[in-house]
Amino acid sequence: MPQGQPTHVPDDGLTTRQRRNRPLTIVHTGPGKGKSTAAFGLALRGWNQGWPIGVFQFVKSAKWRIGEESALKALGELHERTGQGGAVDWHKMGEGWSWIQRDLHSDPELQADNARAGWERIKADLAAETYRLYVLDEFTYPMKWGWVDVEDVVQTLAERPGAQHVVITGRDAAPALLEAADLVTEMTKVKHPMDAGQKGQKGIEW
Amino acid sequence: MPQGQPTHVPDDGLTTRQRRNRPLTIVHTGPGKGKSTAAFGLALRGWNQGWPIGVFQFVKSAKWRIGEESALKALGELHERTGQGGAVDWHKMGEGWSWIQRDLHSDPELQADNARAGWERIKADLAAETYRLYVLDEFTYPMKWGWVDVEDVVQTLAERPGAQHVVITGRDAAPALLEAADLVTEMTKVKHPMDAGQKGQKGIEW
Repeated sequence: MPQGQPTHVPDDGLTTRQRRNRPLTIVHTGPGKGKSTAAFGLALRGWNQGWPIGVFQFVKSAKWRIGEESALKALGELHERTGQGGAVDWHKMGEGWSWIQRDLHSDPELQADNARAGWERIKADLAAETYRLYVLDEFTYPMKWGWVDVEDVVQTLAERPGAQHVVITGRDAAPALLEAADLVTEMTKVKHPMDAGQKGQKGIEW
Repeated sequence: MPQGQPTHVPDDGLTTRQRRNRPLTIVHTGPGKGKSTAAFGLALRGWNQGWPIGVFQFVKSAKWRIGEESALKALGELHERTGQGGAVDWHKMGEGWSWIQRDLHSDPELQADNARAGWERIKADLAAETYRLYVLDEFTYPMKWGWVDVEDVVQTLAERPGAQHVVITGRDAAPALLEAADLVTEMTKVKHPMDAGQKGQKGIEW
């Protein structure tokens, strides 16, 4: 898409440069494919800018996102070895946030605790300006399920220091989050091979 | 998203494995962000599977996709050096398909010729099974503008050999292409910072 011009210039006392570099809250929602995939694509851009990137995966799965994880970790290792691009930290619920040691497989309450622990970690990282880009993958669900308070998320994002961009993915994003976001894209399913009896395949679905 | 089960099993004489490994035609269309970004995210999955990946960019620009290009090329170089992941070829119109030497800056007819040359190259690659995943970025536009014949695209894709996946991005995908596709996602713009007077910024827009 062309970058184009703003449709109007707001009377907010900011210079164009200040406005341009304002940290963004980005939400990818809707029932279609591509919400997380586009977020990881954005991480490629951030990596190329040399940004430290923090990925936080909020839904446990054996093989989801394994392609993105391997590729982004490989880019992070390339950064460590050569200085090209930025650092990549990949935090995964279920295989365990590294800062919590519990068995999550059976107990939904433990999953809720774990999601909350993940969010507290993100709050600490935002306060410390650990990353320049945060990918909070499937983070709408802990909010939807009441495990993480939406108002706390909105307030924390509003008050975050510096120029930290945050991308949140998942279906059913809360209205308050959409209201607070700078950029919202809804992915709509138009046609999907599972509708024609086809199961997911490696390289495409994970 | 969970992988789930097919909504029904078709009476097409294929085994589940045959159906599962059927090559996919994927279209990302609509006015929202994320069409190309999600396609490059898919390329991360393919890279992790060790697939040779061919990217063909059909719209010329100084800085679009530079982040994805740098990151995917870095992954391609990593493959060459260590064998990890897959090979990546990046073909770009404007900086010139490498197989055409012409100045494109002034003449729309030359741009049309160049788009057609790019499509002929893709047809040759599909016939030769050069890649396992093709990202045809912004390829809807040469079709929309009448430079490349939609029916030729649909027929070529229908007759392509092997297990070659093709992802096509861009607004206003032709109905015949949508009909032929296995997976179509429409990206809808819900909210965009340019509406609030904010211009694009590096790491986010490119």
